[in-house]
Amino acid sequence: MPTMQTVQTMIRSHPATTGVDRAQLARVVDLLLACSAACTVCADACLAEEHVEDMRTCIRTDLDCADVCTAAARVLSRQTAYDADVTRAVLQACVVVCRACADECASHGDVHEHCKVCAQACQDCLQACEDLLAAIG
Amino acid sequence: MPTMQTVQTMIRSHPATTGVDRAQLARVVDLLLACSAACTVCADACLAEEHVEDMRTCIRTDLDCADVCTAAARVLSRQTAYDADVTRAVLQACVVVCRACADECASHGDVHEHCKVCAQACQDCLQACEDLLAAIG
Amino acid sequence: MPTMQTVQTMIRSHPATTGVDRAQLARVVDLLLACSAACTVCADACLAEEHVEDMRTCIRTDLDCADVCTAAARVLSRQTAYDADVTRAVLQACVVVCRACADECASHGDVHEHCKVCAQACQDCLQACEDLLAAIG
Amino acid sequence: MPTMQTVQTMIRSHPATTGVDRAQLARVVDLLLACSAACTVCADACLAEEHVEDMRTCIRTDLDCADVCTAAARVLSRQTAYDADVTRAVLQACVVVCRACADECASHGDVHEHCKVCAQACQDCLQACEDLLAAIG
Repeated sequence: MPTMQTVQTMIRSHPATTGVDRAQLARVVDLLLACSAACTVCADACLAEEHVEDMRTCIRTDLDCADVCTAAARVLSRQTAYDADVTRAVLQACVVVCRACADECASHGDVHEHCKVCAQACQDCLQACEDLLAAIG
Repeated sequence: MPTMQTVQTMIRSHPATTGVDRAQLARVVDLLLACSAACTVCADACLAEEHVEDMRTCIRTDLDCADVCTAAARVLSRQTAYDADVTRAVLQACVVVCRACADECASHGDVHEHCKVCAQACQDCLQACEDLLAAIG
Repeated sequence: MPTMQTVQTMIRSHPATTGVDRAQLARVVDLLLACSAACTVCADACLAEEHVEDMRTCIRTDLDCADVCTAAARVLSRQTAYDADVTRAVLQACVVVCRACADECASHGDVHEHCKVCAQACQDCLQACEDLLAAIG
Repeated sequence: MPTMQTVQTMIRSHPATTGVDRAQLARVVDLLLACSAACTVCADACLAEEHVEDMRTCIRTDLDCADVCTAAARVLSRQTAYDADVTRAVLQACVVVCRACADECASHGDVHEHCKVCAQACQDCLQACEDLLAAIG
């Protein structure tokens, strides 16, 4: 099964309940994983570009975004002993890092296809995090 | 975009070439991410089960498998300065850890749906890693 | 060399400058790594305890704290294209997660030595993150 | 407490026993964390170098080594339901990746201090992994 279906099926099969909508949770986790994967590839693709000296900020921001979204995907995947404060803190960090990465990648999006796709993945992830933040209050 | 399409699009847009088939690479990365996510949720779901004292080995193996597959997904996502020895070493570690986790989860698969789905995710990932190992020689 | 000296030497040898004091940065990174390692061991030690059914919240919070601090140590280790907003967002997430984990572990600290040591590691890390937040303004 | 003492104290306080010497285990975990941290800083320091176009392989190998050693430090930190096959597979992957990174960093060690220190951290980690592999048989 591709990642999204695996995540949905797994999160639905969990014995605990958190009050957070499971379909929304699964969607956020999948978009965090997609964003993290996009940023990991984008950093590496930027590194292979001819003018790598112009890609320093993009590479660094990609790496940060990959690290934060990987951690967030793990935290959000857990439904045992749910802690709204922890969830909120992690989502807020994602919003800031995804916005920085979306902006930086978008600024190279007309030159590099990987930056354009990565900017979209960051934007989708950021939106999903903000929606979940609004839902949990 | 869901994770699988994001990974495929990103890996295809990379400027470097490694000699490894990109569709196969993207498939392995997606299955590594799916396996890692499944194991993270499974560990947490096992922790919430009534008889958590019977789930110790499953939780521990899930956590190991999540960590190794997360690292492997990152390494495999990189196509710059490709090193076949590193790729092979990482895939071989995944094969061993995914097999341990698939076996352990399968042994609880008739009782816990999350273990059944997780065992399948580990099995799919293990197969994809073995196929890629065969392809790169 | 042990981790702390390695981190200090590496951060000092970086060609870029961020305006953040390097000794303080190295100290935060080392305490993030120590906290992350303590939480990883504590989760696993709790899992081996006779009354694991009483350790569910501790295990879950340990795993969250390990993930967030691992990501934060990586982000803080980077000095190229420094972004104060990203640094701040990551430190703020650490403060919340370390506090949750310090409180939870401290509540088992009289029974389990690993929880007592882990609570202290979380507390030290939290304090270092707050000090750095104050320093960067 | 700095990372090394935290790791030693935590690993000693674990209720389970694996047959692996705890002092040696703690030493390996600390060197894996040191290596991972060194590689994360080295990748970022290489990125800031004037001739970043010559550092592509070093950056990529650093990132791989950081990811594999981070995962390995987590797996090795666990003593519950110890699995020698998993431990061995993870250590073997570390040996290969640390050797690749030690070699690559050493080739820039006379020009960049961070590469020299990182090469040593990889070498120390590789040696500790090989020693543990020999000890567990």
